[in-house]
Amino acid sequence: MVNYKITIAYDGTKYRGWQVLGDSDLTIQGKLQDLLGKLTGQPVEVIGSGRTDAGVHAACQVANFHVDNQFSKEAIMEAFERYLTEDIAVTSIEEVDDRFHARYNAVSKTYRYRIHNGKTKDVFARRYVYHYEQPLDMDAMRKAASYLLGTHDFRSFCGNKKMKKSTVRTITDITISKVGDEIVLDYTGDGFLQNMIRILTGTLIEVGDGRRAATEIPEILAALDRQAAGYTAPPQGLILMGVTYD
Amino acid sequence: MVNYKITIAYDGTKYRGWQVLGDSDLTIQGKLQDLLGKLTGQPVEVIGSGRTDAGVHAACQVANFHVDNQFSKEAIMEAFERYLTEDIAVTSIEEVDDRFHARYNAVSKTYRYRIHNGKTKDVFARRYVYHYEQPLDMDAMRKAASYLLGTHDFRSFCGNKKMKKSTVRTITDITISKVGDEIVLDYTGDGFLQNMIRILTGTLIEVGDGRRAATEIPEILAALDRQAAGYTAPPQGLILMGVTYD
Repeated sequence: MVNYKITIAYDGTKYRGWQVLGDSDLTIQGKLQDLLGKLTGQPVEVIGSGRTDAGVHAACQVANFHVDNQFSKEAIMEAFERYLTEDIAVTSIEEVDDRFHARYNAVSKTYRYRIHNGKTKDVFARRYVYHYEQPLDMDAMRKAASYLLGTHDFRSFCGNKKMKKSTVRTITDITISKVGDEIVLDYTGDGFLQNMIRILTGTLIEVGDGRRAATEIPEILAALDRQAAGYTAPPQGLILMGVTYD
Repeated sequence: MVNYKITIAYDGTKYRGWQVLGDSDLTIQGKLQDLLGKLTGQPVEVIGSGRTDAGVHAACQVANFHVDNQFSKEAIMEAFERYLTEDIAVTSIEEVDDRFHARYNAVSKTYRYRIHNGKTKDVFARRYVYHYEQPLDMDAMRKAASYLLGTHDFRSFCGNKKMKKSTVRTITDITISKVGDEIVLDYTGDGFLQNMIRILTGTLIEVGDGRRAATEIPEILAALDRQAAGYTAPPQGLILMGVTYD
């Protein structure tokens, strides 16, 4: 068996997210597994670096899968190019060590959240940005973000209320920048909980528009309660930018 | 009556083009006229600078319309912002001289055609680019474009075979540039015939991939026959960038 590592770009607009559930046609993992299953004549498990929610995009999701030696990189890429739907593209493939695991070996992930912060909507970017009209105070948002850096229990920012595993994560960087009418939030960390980036973003927006003070963040973290944090920003503004491995 | 000039951005993906025909829900002009008709209680004609084909986009289409004095700029803009579908945005409105006519007074137009010229498709730009895999010789395309500049009878590049009016037009500029994997063709002229930019682009692509020589352009122009020119490039790569007035 060969272990292949692939990078995948997808427009998540019409999907229920990365992870296969029920009808595999509605998930990215399902689409890839179906195609590889047809190509190889065997069920193939495609292991992603992590799940993305329904409607969330990826510029560089990473995954791996094992197939029989007879299937070359070139043959697999050709199948992807020919048969994948137009909103999913496999952008690279390489053979990796048999022990490589896209989820367990991921060291850090970077997500981007794009806010179109102008009065006039952007008809071309609308599928990839969150249109938020009210002005946002970026300095206040940056101050709030500074409290989030480091290792914390992020239970207050976890969308899964029944989460049984550890909710401790480390955020190494949050960069908030402005490009034209767009406010871009880039988050890097060792991993993120379900909906975490979207709840972080909703909370930072509530700071930006004056509903909350930046100094409330330590209390929100300490509460260990989803109710303490802000709203969940919508999925279409979110995109997985990259995953790093040792 | 007041004469308002507006600029409109639209994602043309799901429309039959600018001009109303039959079901007005499927055209940009129809959508605008319906909304203004409901607002004012009167039929309103929205005059565009020109038609765009089915599936073609606009960053800055210009139009004008006359309504009763009681309807302020602010009230009209609010109606546009509230009721227009998410793929159409009116980006500016101003009161203009009663004689201003968006089509008759247009002095020049600029269109952009975007070709994604790489092996891997771009899942995010796919609605706004034409994916063409084979390498294109940009120098040959630029040489061919140089023969198109100036005033010519462009009958060979007109999609309407029954065109009774003059097919003489002046192209003042064609700029061909490369940004990453994308080849961008910017055309400026006093006006363009039906499908003209798409036929020009299809012909330049046939020069770029070696099917034709750049030096064939003068013969193609002289033929005054649609059959002499290249294919019609697909609509999604085309966007009206702007219209100028004196």
